[in-house]
Amino acid sequence: MATRYETISFLSDYGTTDEFVGVVHSVIRSIAPHAAVIDITHEVPSYDVRAGGLTLARSAQYLSPGVVVAVVDPGVGTERRAIAVEVGEGASVLVGPDNGLLAPAVALCGGANRAVELTNPEFQLPAPGPTFAGRDVFAPAAAHLCNGVELDELGEPINVATLLPGILPVTYEEDDALVAEVLWVDKYGNAQLNVDPDEIASFGDRLRLSFGDDARTARRVASFGDVGPGEVGLVIDSYGLLAVVVDRHSAAGELGLHPSTEVRIARIGDDDVDHDRGVVSAVRLRAKEQP
Amino acid sequence: MATRYETISFLSDYGTTDEFVGVVHSVIRSIAPHAAVIDITHEVPSYDVRAGGLTLARSAQYLSPGVVVAVVDPGVGTERRAIAVEVGEGASVLVGPDNGLLAPAVALCGGANRAVELTNPEFQLPAPGPTFAGRDVFAPAAAHLCNGVELDELGEPINVATLLPGILPVTYEEDDALVAEVLWVDKYGNAQLNVDPDEIASFGDRLRLSFGDDARTARRVASFGDVGPGEVGLVIDSYGLLAVVVDRHSAAGELGLHPSTEVRIARIGDDDVDHDRGVVSAVRLRAKEQP
Amino acid sequence: MATRYETISFLSDYGTTDEFVGVVHSVIRSIAPHAAVIDITHEVPSYDVRAGGLTLARSAQYLSPGVVVAVVDPGVGTERRAIAVEVGEGASVLVGPDNGLLAPAVALCGGANRAVELTNPEFQLPAPGPTFAGRDVFAPAAAHLCNGVELDELGEPINVATLLPGILPVTYEEDDALVAEVLWVDKYGNAQLNVDPDEIASFGDRLRLSFGDDARTARRVASFGDVGPGEVGLVIDSYGLLAVVVDRHSAAGELGLHPSTEVRIARIGDDDVDHDRGVVSAVRLRAKEQP
Repeated sequence: MATRYETISFLSDYGTTDEFVGVVHSVIRSIAPHAAVIDITHEVPSYDVRAGGLTLARSAQYLSPGVVVAVVDPGVGTERRAIAVEVGEGASVLVGPDNGLLAPAVALCGGANRAVELTNPEFQLPAPGPTFAGRDVFAPAAAHLCNGVELDELGEPINVATLLPGILPVTYEEDDALVAEVLWVDKYGNAQLNVDPDEIASFGDRLRLSFGDDARTARRVASFGDVGPGEVGLVIDSYGLLAVVVDRHSAAGELGLHPSTEVRIARIGDDDVDHDRGVVSAVRLRAKEQP
Repeated sequence: MATRYETISFLSDYGTTDEFVGVVHSVIRSIAPHAAVIDITHEVPSYDVRAGGLTLARSAQYLSPGVVVAVVDPGVGTERRAIAVEVGEGASVLVGPDNGLLAPAVALCGGANRAVELTNPEFQLPAPGPTFAGRDVFAPAAAHLCNGVELDELGEPINVATLLPGILPVTYEEDDALVAEVLWVDKYGNAQLNVDPDEIASFGDRLRLSFGDDARTARRVASFGDVGPGEVGLVIDSYGLLAVVVDRHSAAGELGLHPSTEVRIARIGDDDVDHDRGVVSAVRLRAKEQP
Repeated sequence: MATRYETISFLSDYGTTDEFVGVVHSVIRSIAPHAAVIDITHEVPSYDVRAGGLTLARSAQYLSPGVVVAVVDPGVGTERRAIAVEVGEGASVLVGPDNGLLAPAVALCGGANRAVELTNPEFQLPAPGPTFAGRDVFAPAAAHLCNGVELDELGEPINVATLLPGILPVTYEEDDALVAEVLWVDKYGNAQLNVDPDEIASFGDRLRLSFGDDARTARRVASFGDVGPGEVGLVIDSYGLLAVVVDRHSAAGELGLHPSTEVRIARIGDDDVDHDRGVVSAVRLRAKEQP
């Protein structure tokens, strides 16, 4: 008997206004009534594969082992592949389009063990029109995996080296500044940067942030509560990356920051600080530390 | 022992800002802890019975057998009846107000076998003020059905012929055009029409769409991916009906289409096409095809 | 063996755009897979402790016995305590920040039996950065409680008299008017006041409402359906409090009412009514009446 999974984690850009999310839940329940479905979010901006991939990566280390269904799919109806990717020696399988959406989470989980293209119609629903991939392909695949169907029954094996990679922006130094980028603006308006705190360890506690035509002085603070009124703070956020924050308001709203906004971080008062430059490294969402 | 149901599918116009949805879930869990509740959507526009009924109808063929609770209830507090309708020889029971909301889904499930008015206070919660029907009447009824309470214990039998029908717009021909209507604008802005593809089978691949003071040329395409930039496409959507789409943008937004907008569809270049008129038929959301 | 809980009810101001809610669900499922999580709402206005506390209080009597996790936490990162409060002789435990959020619900459940500060790192997740309290502290505490961990294993006992109380506005009389306040505007625009119907029992059926620079005549009606077009109605809402309503539209939108808006209620035609003044009492969300 194959592994049976008990949990399906589900992320999409479907929104909750239409019935799409509910129908995916219903299809799963009809096929695998024992499986619990956990909604990560369905408010990924429409078609925004980068945002969806980052959201999945931030969540990855906290998800229950099992199946992940992720759907942000601007290429639906084109020849992009529908895939299932096994990670963690079978601990989890990620199901979705092969457009880079799954890649950051797969990387965080140690890389793909094996993958298949979801080509077997036996484990799909027939559509009354063109395929609605979440409903007709991804949900049934996830549910059948929970029921013990083997990965390689779902379709043709894929060389994992051919899976479309995700592209995450990397910081670099230019003119003594670290050139970074906003990865994510959360609901409270905190703007997460692609900056590991180590990269600016030598920059001191007060820094200059430049973005668009604006520039602000920011202060390194230990927590949200330490940002004073009117002040711009730089905190290590709860994912271990640097974030721009203000006191109980939206930093993004006040400063005009959006995902992908370039933010240059520079020292203030070069005379006062030593010139060891921070190590410029690729963004690394931290791997799980077990309790 | 009566049938016990395991799944309650739940649709409403409650939104998720208030606690209404959570309270309905809680009431169900208190009465029938074994039942899983699947949220179809709670973002039906407030009081929009037509939109709610269409959403339920689109979902119907994918729902798990069991109980459906649907609440879009502009007549709450008036004498409209609260009902439970059995369909599929007991496979499912639909619970909600008798205002036409349930009617399209009931029809898709083959019609009502029997129905009751929810009049038995033994299976309701006492309200501290006027009845909050979802919480006090519909949720308890659904939960007790899951526990094996018989339909006819919930209240007085109703002649199913007296149930309020749903009203779905039907296309018609006028001046060589098919006069259709937007049924639904989905989250991506695709505008589903009340048109079965058979109705325009003879119209050719390029058609003229007229709506409001505007008119556009549209092209029949096989999938979303085939619509070119700047082009208006007509696809068969994943429910089997015709939809107006544009390339990765909101067709409804660009063209000013809303639910109920009249759209006239006409041939282009009458010389080039034969004059067999499409069959004008009632809208038929397709019945389930088993995998 | 300690009590095992089966249900976690979850309220927050997290919104559903980010992955916060999904991650909390995932953390709970990883620790206590048998527990069902019911979302009350996650759309409490950001940082609005009063609104969150009122929402929880309105829901309290309908929640399944078990654990409640509530997070509206403007003081995160400051020295506010993270707490778990037992009520109902162990029937339920409320988990969240000690900022008054839990207080109205605790009071409705008969007051706190005992409480602890969540200080035991053994029942928390390590954070890659600063603590994300919902994910790292509250969710694990709730899940471990479901697994049978004893309350006092989660941290140091707290004197329940030191828990921060919630502050609910109380009506008062001034110049023959009852000075009330909007507690809540629901999704339909109904404006719930902090007024028990008994308080205006002697005011008659037609009253004068004054708010901001505006004043309107309102009529006591038995249900939403009884409000005529253009009329302002005062109903007892489904929680047993007085609410300002209009016919199928948003009373709040039409009258400019918001949570905390002061509303003065006065008799019309003093000659016609007797002058017994309503008893001015504190707001009391009604306790549960068992079916």
